[in-house]
Amino acid sequence: MTPRYDFASDNVAGAAPEAVQALIDHNTGSASGYGTDLVTRRAADLVRELLDADADVRFVANGTAANALGVAALARPFEAVLCHEHAHIRTDETGAPGFFGQGVGLLTLAGASGKIDAAALQTALEQPDVSHRQSPAALSLTNATEYGTVYTDDELRRLIELADAYAGHQGRGLPVHLDGARLANAAAAGFELKELPRMGVDLLVIGGTKAGMTPTEAIVLFDKSLSPRFDARLKQAGQLTSKGRFLSAPWIGMLETGAWRDRAGHANAMARRLATAVAPHFPLTHPVQANAVFVRMEEPALGRLREQGWFVYRFLDGSVRMMCSWATAPDAVDEFAASVAAIA
Amino acid sequence: MTPRYDFASDNVAGAAPEAVQALIDHNTGSASGYGTDLVTRRAADLVRELLDADADVRFVANGTAANALGVAALARPFEAVLCHEHAHIRTDETGAPGFFGQGVGLLTLAGASGKIDAAALQTALEQPDVSHRQSPAALSLTNATEYGTVYTDDELRRLIELADAYAGHQGRGLPVHLDGARLANAAAAGFELKELPRMGVDLLVIGGTKAGMTPTEAIVLFDKSLSPRFDARLKQAGQLTSKGRFLSAPWIGMLETGAWRDRAGHANAMARRLATAVAPHFPLTHPVQANAVFVRMEEPALGRLREQGWFVYRFLDGSVRMMCSWATAPDAVDEFAASVAAIA
Amino acid sequence: MTPRYDFASDNVAGAAPEAVQALIDHNTGSASGYGTDLVTRRAADLVRELLDADADVRFVANGTAANALGVAALARPFEAVLCHEHAHIRTDETGAPGFFGQGVGLLTLAGASGKIDAAALQTALEQPDVSHRQSPAALSLTNATEYGTVYTDDELRRLIELADAYAGHQGRGLPVHLDGARLANAAAAGFELKELPRMGVDLLVIGGTKAGMTPTEAIVLFDKSLSPRFDARLKQAGQLTSKGRFLSAPWIGMLETGAWRDRAGHANAMARRLATAVAPHFPLTHPVQANAVFVRMEEPALGRLREQGWFVYRFLDGSVRMMCSWATAPDAVDEFAASVAAIA
Amino acid sequence: MTPRYDFASDNVAGAAPEAVQALIDHNTGSASGYGTDLVTRRAADLVRELLDADADVRFVANGTAANALGVAALARPFEAVLCHEHAHIRTDETGAPGFFGQGVGLLTLAGASGKIDAAALQTALEQPDVSHRQSPAALSLTNATEYGTVYTDDELRRLIELADAYAGHQGRGLPVHLDGARLANAAAAGFELKELPRMGVDLLVIGGTKAGMTPTEAIVLFDKSLSPRFDARLKQAGQLTSKGRFLSAPWIGMLETGAWRDRAGHANAMARRLATAVAPHFPLTHPVQANAVFVRMEEPALGRLREQGWFVYRFLDGSVRMMCSWATAPDAVDEFAASVAAIA
Repeated sequence: MTPRYDFASDNVAGAAPEAVQALIDHNTGSASGYGTDLVTRRAADLVRELLDADADVRFVANGTAANALGVAALARPFEAVLCHEHAHIRTDETGAPGFFGQGVGLLTLAGASGKIDAAALQTALEQPDVSHRQSPAALSLTNATEYGTVYTDDELRRLIELADAYAGHQGRGLPVHLDGARLANAAAAGFELKELPRMGVDLLVIGGTKAGMTPTEAIVLFDKSLSPRFDARLKQAGQLTSKGRFLSAPWIGMLETGAWRDRAGHANAMARRLATAVAPHFPLTHPVQANAVFVRMEEPALGRLREQGWFVYRFLDGSVRMMCSWATAPDAVDEFAASVAAIA
Repeated sequence: MTPRYDFASDNVAGAAPEAVQALIDHNTGSASGYGTDLVTRRAADLVRELLDADADVRFVANGTAANALGVAALARPFEAVLCHEHAHIRTDETGAPGFFGQGVGLLTLAGASGKIDAAALQTALEQPDVSHRQSPAALSLTNATEYGTVYTDDELRRLIELADAYAGHQGRGLPVHLDGARLANAAAAGFELKELPRMGVDLLVIGGTKAGMTPTEAIVLFDKSLSPRFDARLKQAGQLTSKGRFLSAPWIGMLETGAWRDRAGHANAMARRLATAVAPHFPLTHPVQANAVFVRMEEPALGRLREQGWFVYRFLDGSVRMMCSWATAPDAVDEFAASVAAIA
Repeated sequence: MTPRYDFASDNVAGAAPEAVQALIDHNTGSASGYGTDLVTRRAADLVRELLDADADVRFVANGTAANALGVAALARPFEAVLCHEHAHIRTDETGAPGFFGQGVGLLTLAGASGKIDAAALQTALEQPDVSHRQSPAALSLTNATEYGTVYTDDELRRLIELADAYAGHQGRGLPVHLDGARLANAAAAGFELKELPRMGVDLLVIGGTKAGMTPTEAIVLFDKSLSPRFDARLKQAGQLTSKGRFLSAPWIGMLETGAWRDRAGHANAMARRLATAVAPHFPLTHPVQANAVFVRMEEPALGRLREQGWFVYRFLDGSVRMMCSWATAPDAVDEFAASVAAIA
Repeated sequence: MTPRYDFASDNVAGAAPEAVQALIDHNTGSASGYGTDLVTRRAADLVRELLDADADVRFVANGTAANALGVAALARPFEAVLCHEHAHIRTDETGAPGFFGQGVGLLTLAGASGKIDAAALQTALEQPDVSHRQSPAALSLTNATEYGTVYTDDELRRLIELADAYAGHQGRGLPVHLDGARLANAAAAGFELKELPRMGVDLLVIGGTKAGMTPTEAIVLFDKSLSPRFDARLKQAGQLTSKGRFLSAPWIGMLETGAWRDRAGHANAMARRLATAVAPHFPLTHPVQANAVFVRMEEPALGRLREQGWFVYRFLDGSVRMMCSWATAPDAVDEFAASVAAIA
């Protein structure tokens, strides 16, 4: 039996019609290379509009690279980035920050359901700056989080205020990176994107891939002091695409139509539907605020689920994760939920 | 006037119909991530068939990364890679080999029209292995070359034999990387691809992008001792794509139909047509064997060409380069050639 | 009051007479550079004799570099090294393995008193080899440990056997690095050095600095497949010394006379003397097997000790560490112990 | 016959009496680690006095590391450093700048006798800042040069003015690194050290080793914005020495007595004596302004010289180099010169 990956991740889905149509629409004529084309300019304008910010925007093919380049732009090799202990950059990217950042360190922070605990951050920021350790140079946040929760504006603002007040490194505050691989899901859950530049995020990665596009992510430089030679940084790191329009066109399709947020809203709704169906059988381990459902499920039950053909992952906190995407159909949720009920 | 980039590069073209159709065809249902899907498996089979080799194949989004990762897999930071002095990895990739290879060096070799001179290679291989220099650990070749010429099988074989005979490094020969960003053009010009594994290439990059696809390149590991943990290498370097099918599907479309080679053949033919038209006015500086035309053109003439709206590059050897692609129409060649004649 | 650092570390001591005399003795005439001189050859012979092994030996100026270069020689950037969670390479070297190893990861293992727990190692080795994590490529051990304990031959052999049996990475076992910054103290405590090559250590760093020399460490390559171009590796990393004799001469002085081990024996004896004196007041937290004494001491008591002018460190496990060295005089131990008793 | 290396390099010499005596004098009592000790503070004060500058000073064990860390502090991986085509950092350090700088590039400039030609620098600075190349981020100078010549203050000032006027990178000028491995020889030749901070050097490396010390080099940060976390940078890179006093004490011995400059003056005088003796037989190829003599000597003659037991190097420009040091005796010069005359 071929395993079914439908609920294994939100990247098992294909590309949404709006993204594909835009690829087709913009596949005409000649275009200058390396992101200097008009399609890319239009997509960048739409991202700026989405965020209500005069930021520099670049499109890259890979989220791991986008995050790692972001981290490398903010911290030097002998410094570290503060992040949640289960942040994607720490647990699922094969040490990419260290590769792109030449050994840059990650200092991990605890916090329930993927959100950094403010007190943990405060404690970390109070450590003395000594030469035999990598001391903090940046704060990395994630929204929606790895556990399918969504920070409120106030929660993020509180963390960023702590980072701003950091005096360990010559009295300067810490710049902030935000991994928004699932920012669409956060937005659909009510998170106000236009607060991001106002609250002091310096560098943002917005996920296109998980939002329903072909592979593409947007890097947003709110802090324009990061912009000079950023294209050279991308080029050297294998992230400056010659036929740039194919990374930007999907953004036009998804942003002009509102599909970027709307389809994430659908994914979120499917997660809620799934949560309702499975919670009676397997207790939820995290609030369902975006497109993920986490449940407590012991190994025998998980084994039975896999025997029924469904592949899902056990996470670092011991929970089993079930993901919905823009492409998840209500029928598929019901079919999957029935299997889950059956193995309970 | 918006400049016209039609002849500036072969990456100004969009994607060929066969590539786009395959993207659409394979955009259905769920697929497991990170290159483990069936679309990717099928594409890899087709690449193996193309080369008549039992090799491992990966698809990445970026040629700079593909080459730099290839180099980094063959040479350590304190070693060097031998390449042509005008090789793309040296002149146009912002030091990517040094970034991916943590300072790995490039030792440059002369040679007419982008082909490495065998005597120059021999001389380089005879240098003593001393600790204060980066000594050779690999040989990097390019076919078709940066100057639009095509190595014959015998020419490549001769260079690889020299590399194999290298005794500087503990009596071991040097492994070989081949940058095939324009391998389709070489193949269309008569180069026999199935000779590549037989002649001793260890790691090959095949260009999809310049051959008419959306951004995608194939990395071919003929030497399977390079395969263990290669996916981890890709992941860390931001080159393991979650929705892998969108990088592999275009290969299915282009290889199953023969378009990969046929459309390169068209590009080559357009280059010959262009060469015939411009040679009476501006002398050719390199043989026209693939899809590039290089001419001697002084600055005033180049200025007049740009005033007419055509953007083309001056190259490191002083020539002006004019590129054709799968999308170049005969009419466009004639229109451009008329402009060139007019400014002569 | 100038703080007294006498018991803060074993690197607060100067150089032992035998080391200084050898520096003076070998400071005559011209010598060829970069470790090719006769002084260095003689010192390497003495190290081989000490270990009863036909190994390649290099002398470098810095222990952090020696360990990090060792790790980088065994693991690639997308791989990881297994080590104790409180290993020096993890907690006190500012991420040096990641810098020298271009992002190479560290996977940490628990274990009492600085010794890796065999079961923890076994569990780590059983993790599946997946591309989104850095999987093990080497095992790093330390003897004497950070907590002043000494592995027996059998304990080390057991860990190395587990590493050898690792099948995760293409069925190959893991190579072994041993950080011997305090190997002299282990030897003086009865550890049989000549077992190291027999038990399967591949790359060993022997501390000269902490053993009473001016800054110098020995890198021992038991696995000679690591030797080709190792000097180029050192040179690029800023660890190939032009006037090499000044890094090797101290080894001649200390090894020919037996001072390397004898003076470490003195340091160990001073630690036992100190332990006996302080244990009635502050409970020992780790066995005293080498030259360190760890005690439980709350902040107020530590504050009073510092007020008396003595500077010592609180360690990651919460203990306070007191170190002895070759230069520690019995009177100084008694004076310090009296202060400790006074603040109890 | 054991080859005689007396004139092969200035690092074949041992350590001068003033350096050794200081090592002995400061080898007493306990000292805090990692450069925080009083010996190091005193040495740093003397360096500041030498330069008449309120700079931060660090002592490291290795010149290659000192230069490479300096370059890495000024340029990012996707940028480049401008240097003479025969600069030591380019030709003799195994790609160390690329290793420490994660692929940072070197852009090379021509110029007679090791001095950068101002017009060549100007041309390089006028290149457009494009993303597919590593554009300049710093200028690296060397005094005395690799060819034994000495820049005047005005010559250096002219080059630095050009760098300051660089507008390619967002209108900012380029910071300046100066490799002073043989700065003592330049000073002895009349170069006014106190002009260095005034003319705009940002980061200076002063050679201790070649000036007659045991292995030690000083890094001088005139630009104190480079200072925060510089010790962490050193620590991570294996260049923060625990027993720091052994790297700083020789500076006290050599600077307090004036030996640093005086003994370099002796080396320079020996080079003039040698030049006078050999010039009638082999023409000088570069002015003799410091401690090096370069002559035109064909292979057969060089072979005969080596048969007489003298080892000297052929350099990249084809010349044969003969070096004098603080330890070179007049008799040795005469003996060597006689051999040279004999093989003419």
